[in-house]
Amino acid sequence: MEKSGGKQVSVVVPPLEGLAGGGTAYGWSDGGLEDSILYTGEVDPTKVPTADLLHVWCMPSTANIGQQEIPRPLDNISLLAARNEKESVQIVLRPKVSWACSGIAGVVQMHCTDLCSSSGDRLAVGQSLTLRRVVPILGVPDALVPLDLPVSQINLLPGETTAIWLSVDVPPGQPPGQYEGVVSISALKGELGCTSQSMPKLEKSELYRELKSCLDSVDPVDGRTMNELVEREKYTTSVLRRILFSPMFHEFSSDNGSTEMMDEDALTNLSVLLKISVTVWDFTLPITPSLPAVIGVSHITIFMLLELHGIVQLNISFFIVVLIAIMISETVIEDRFRVEHGTDGWFDALDQHFRWLLQYRISPFFCRWGDSMRVLAYTCPWRADHPKSDEYYSNLRLAAYAVPYYPILSGSNSDAEKDSLRKEVEILKNKAHWGKAYFYLWDEPLNAEQYEVIRSMSREIRTYAPDARVLTTYYCGPSDVHYAPGTFEAFVKVPNLLRPHTQIFCTSEWVLGAREDLVKDITAELRPENGEEWWTYVCMGPTDPHPNLHLGMRGTQHRAVMWRVWKEGGTGFLYWGANCYEKATVPSAEIRFRRGLPPGDGVLFYPGEVFSSSHEPVASARLERLLSGLQDIEYLKLYSSRYGREASIALLEKTGVYLGPERYAADHMPVDLMRAEIYHTCHS
Amino acid sequence: MEKSGGKQVSVVVPPLEGLAGGGTAYGWSDGGLEDSILYTGEVDPTKVPTADLLHVWCMPSTANIGQQEIPRPLDNISLLAARNEKESVQIVLRPKVSWACSGIAGVVQMHCTDLCSSSGDRLAVGQSLTLRRVVPILGVPDALVPLDLPVSQINLLPGETTAIWLSVDVPPGQPPGQYEGVVSISALKGELGCTSQSMPKLEKSELYRELKSCLDSVDPVDGRTMNELVEREKYTTSVLRRILFSPMFHEFSSDNGSTEMMDEDALTNLSVLLKISVTVWDFTLPITPSLPAVIGVSHITIFMLLELHGIVQLNISFFIVVLIAIMISETVIEDRFRVEHGTDGWFDALDQHFRWLLQYRISPFFCRWGDSMRVLAYTCPWRADHPKSDEYYSNLRLAAYAVPYYPILSGSNSDAEKDSLRKEVEILKNKAHWGKAYFYLWDEPLNAEQYEVIRSMSREIRTYAPDARVLTTYYCGPSDVHYAPGTFEAFVKVPNLLRPHTQIFCTSEWVLGAREDLVKDITAELRPENGEEWWTYVCMGPTDPHPNLHLGMRGTQHRAVMWRVWKEGGTGFLYWGANCYEKATVPSAEIRFRRGLPPGDGVLFYPGEVFSSSHEPVASARLERLLSGLQDIEYLKLYSSRYGREASIALLEKTGVYLGPERYAADHMPVDLMRAEIYHTCHS
Repeated sequence: MEKSGGKQVSVVVPPLEGLAGGGTAYGWSDGGLEDSILYTGEVDPTKVPTADLLHVWCMPSTANIGQQEIPRPLDNISLLAARNEKESVQIVLRPKVSWACSGIAGVVQMHCTDLCSSSGDRLAVGQSLTLRRVVPILGVPDALVPLDLPVSQINLLPGETTAIWLSVDVPPGQPPGQYEGVVSISALKGELGCTSQSMPKLEKSELYRELKSCLDSVDPVDGRTMNELVEREKYTTSVLRRILFSPMFHEFSSDNGSTEMMDEDALTNLSVLLKISVTVWDFTLPITPSLPAVIGVSHITIFMLLELHGIVQLNISFFIVVLIAIMISETVIEDRFRVEHGTDGWFDALDQHFRWLLQYRISPFFCRWGDSMRVLAYTCPWRADHPKSDEYYSNLRLAAYAVPYYPILSGSNSDAEKDSLRKEVEILKNKAHWGKAYFYLWDEPLNAEQYEVIRSMSREIRTYAPDARVLTTYYCGPSDVHYAPGTFEAFVKVPNLLRPHTQIFCTSEWVLGAREDLVKDITAELRPENGEEWWTYVCMGPTDPHPNLHLGMRGTQHRAVMWRVWKEGGTGFLYWGANCYEKATVPSAEIRFRRGLPPGDGVLFYPGEVFSSSHEPVASARLERLLSGLQDIEYLKLYSSRYGREASIALLEKTGVYLGPERYAADHMPVDLMRAEIYHTCHS
Repeated sequence: MEKSGGKQVSVVVPPLEGLAGGGTAYGWSDGGLEDSILYTGEVDPTKVPTADLLHVWCMPSTANIGQQEIPRPLDNISLLAARNEKESVQIVLRPKVSWACSGIAGVVQMHCTDLCSSSGDRLAVGQSLTLRRVVPILGVPDALVPLDLPVSQINLLPGETTAIWLSVDVPPGQPPGQYEGVVSISALKGELGCTSQSMPKLEKSELYRELKSCLDSVDPVDGRTMNELVEREKYTTSVLRRILFSPMFHEFSSDNGSTEMMDEDALTNLSVLLKISVTVWDFTLPITPSLPAVIGVSHITIFMLLELHGIVQLNISFFIVVLIAIMISETVIEDRFRVEHGTDGWFDALDQHFRWLLQYRISPFFCRWGDSMRVLAYTCPWRADHPKSDEYYSNLRLAAYAVPYYPILSGSNSDAEKDSLRKEVEILKNKAHWGKAYFYLWDEPLNAEQYEVIRSMSREIRTYAPDARVLTTYYCGPSDVHYAPGTFEAFVKVPNLLRPHTQIFCTSEWVLGAREDLVKDITAELRPENGEEWWTYVCMGPTDPHPNLHLGMRGTQHRAVMWRVWKEGGTGFLYWGANCYEKATVPSAEIRFRRGLPPGDGVLFYPGEVFSSSHEPVASARLERLLSGLQDIEYLKLYSSRYGREASIALLEKTGVYLGPERYAADHMPVDLMRAEIYHTCHS
């Protein structure tokens, strides 16, 4: 009988400490702390460099930083950003010791300066520079909860790593140049987390009673004798003395209020200083993905497709349109924020969501489900004859908008609703923004009957506006019509069934699996000369290792969703849901993902009320990475405008950013490489 | 080309919400919250039942409750405990909504009452009843950080489950009976977590300045004119008024201090009330595992072994001794607490550790490594001629003690050290507690030379006291002596090499693998009639799925370490380290496990300074489970005293508690079953 019996025999030295080389690694040390703290019973952060109390280091925005992330050396932050671009990086903190009193390891203060260029231009903290704490959702770092600026305080927990998401949002008009600033990180004296500083209710109530007794004794002043006044003043004096010399105010009484200044000095000497350097270059991301005029759509798409398939090499990158349309659930808003459809509160709530999502270069639409998979999708909550309509649809940040097909909700096509639809279309079709309009009528039709419903709705719409565009999502052909020899063939031939009743053919990336080469089979069936476009979408599928936006996927996997769109050549991307958490009827209710969905699927932001008293939505790191991916596309567009689309694909591949749905960057380095290459070759 | 292309085709319905049955599960609800909160813009915990704001439920002490543990229905707590037994259970909290201001979901107050019997006896909160927060270490719930009692406040984080470890420690003299009490759990109004309550430094400093100006204006009182006095009093009045009516004291000024009472009433109506019922039964765990007198050791062991192997069926369970010896690293204490060997601070630090560990029915010894794997193991830091020596060794809670073999440290056997050893032994060998003494000289000898060193040291010791006992740990025979045909045979025959120089043969459980039947091969080689004993130990191995104390193993896997000892019939158990974390020189330094060891291996408690200003060590859940396992052994001893050892093994197996190193309870139910069965059959 061997003692190893199926065990690893390699481990034979017992795990015991050794003074003289025996045992396991006792006394191994990564240095630092031990050398500089003079142990005096407790750790005083006003006397010890912050660097001795906590690890501080930086990681890229694509890193998922768990609570057990291991410290790394601190490097200064160096970012490259175009104008109108948002770049992010993470500052990571982990205590080396505990210096606070109860439960937490300690409180850290972060202070950000403006970023300044040598010519005096600024990226202002709080506006262009923001800090957010990365909060885990289901244990995965995802929610980005805003911190106060320019100074914020963060509680660190023993044995836990905390990440802070720093974003630089460069305004479109920012002068190019080198911007420099500093984040200083200082461990604060324990008080803040401890009883002595956060005045407990009892202590406060005691203070109130003492001061009240003081006031009662001196008030009213008039009509007293001299003796009474002197007695009372003596009483007041004694009470005030007692209060002021109590432990509560110990910190102030000992050095007569000069602490503030001293603290400031001390902080600067002891703080960890993290230099931030941002290179803003002479490239401006378009406010919208450069949008074609109404009649231009089909022509642009032709060029784009010709170019994509190598038929034409055009240097007209500004023609290339990639937009993201994203769904906001109307019913989720109504339930959670308790707003009744059509009330002022309802319009406000939808308006707030719309404006907030526009920041992310995304074209939002609201959605309500009808019978079966009919959808009422609309970008503007107001009708076309309302002044808000033009304000919404003309917004430069909006790349596409959904026009509501009202008859969907009733189930029957009543004359009133038909009339309502006709009026809506007749107003919109004459506007300059009509080129951004589309109708999204049915989600993923599955059989012949459903295809016929789409055709019939489209027919009606096109009666009112022959150039109206209908978007249809699908991942298969109709199950009950055998018009093609196989499942994939039936999928690819869907345009034959929907022509001319659909212009935007929006297919699931899941269908492709790892077979990127199938893209050409899809696009070969489309007629861009007739204005037909190819968009893609992801929802439950594809799953790991393919790009998607699920919680728990790698950061580069989230960002790769848009790299994939660029390489495959689609002109739009649809995401099925931004706020599709489980039903709740209180804004601050815990966030629950819907049953049966991968975590995070259909949820790109969270209600702010869950994390603070703020009503502003809290972005997910995944939403930021989607934006970063879209910004990468703008870089790639710029590069193709100089060197052609083929060269942009070659660059994606050469730098290791994206080669295919199963071969793309696992960490951030290739992303920086690609962006730097585009900067070096394209900046003037 | 099939569209499924290697994907799951089963998922065909897209994950979309539906009003009319379409889509995925939107609106599914587990009820509760939505029905009772009247949404009024923000959640006010003084108006809403706490049960609507958070989930509260209970789980057994063997559950590892992660931050994403899913809520369960709330059942009241019902525990069975003997006198002198400690039983624990976990109360689990998870917010349903957020009701505080910044970062946290809300603050919860827990209030415990004493547990009272109908005859008026009590288990007092703070003494017999304690609460500790379960804090993750490397993401695994483990550190048990004490909470204030009888009232404590806990911050809950959004989307995070928090566990509170409730222990009932029944005093040896507690009258049997049914004890009942209540833990009330109340969501507190946000203030506590928010700026308005915890007075920030600036606000406090402002208050200080105002009060100081008040004092300066009235002081000194003497020598002022009437007019001056009146003016100054008017000034004082106005300042005090301004302070008292400031938002800082809003809560007091509005209702003149009557809030306290109102709050109390409101809390009771809205709180979650969790009833605790403890059945204390008429069985008292011995203060020490019932220890034999000096000369009795060998006889008891004989009976025990005879009984174990079915040769004799004895109902003399009090003869059965199982003790745990556990190592505390002296060097870790010296480094972390900066105490110099032999100073008062050093004695204090060791003394504190010794006393603290005794609570856990464990016999601690300190340890320092010499050359190679020589160990200086000693239970009492003072020499035998010091009064502390008797105090330590006579302690009823101590089941065994290590006597230091001083020559180990010098490396050479100087006469002074030999003399020192001789004196030590000569004093101790005449004491009543000498029967508990053992020498632990070398850890895991590996070759003939090391075996000879052990023999030589043992020879020396036995010159001074022929009945001295030497403990030797081993997991193999000497690598360079071929006296047995195989590795396992060489391991089993070690007693032949060490007889009579070792009395306690302490073998690694790892050697057995899943082959419990090999136990009889080990014990067959021992001569209990000569006082030889068999102990076991675990360290790096065995690993999952076998019982051990590593972090991340199941709770029942930790507890099974002692079930295994009972079933295999060893009389002692040695654990290699209680505080063997990585080197640090500040008490509050972060806890790092040693490189190359499984997490938690050699660490059963943490320095209190890491979690709070307390200097008391913080127990791990694993240490509590080791204690629970030892208590289970006392139950099994009681049961064997009535029905025989075979019946106790049958009970372990019948209830599913422990059948073998790969077959034991995965969850808590079998443990309760077994304990209940012993209670029902053995209580009078």
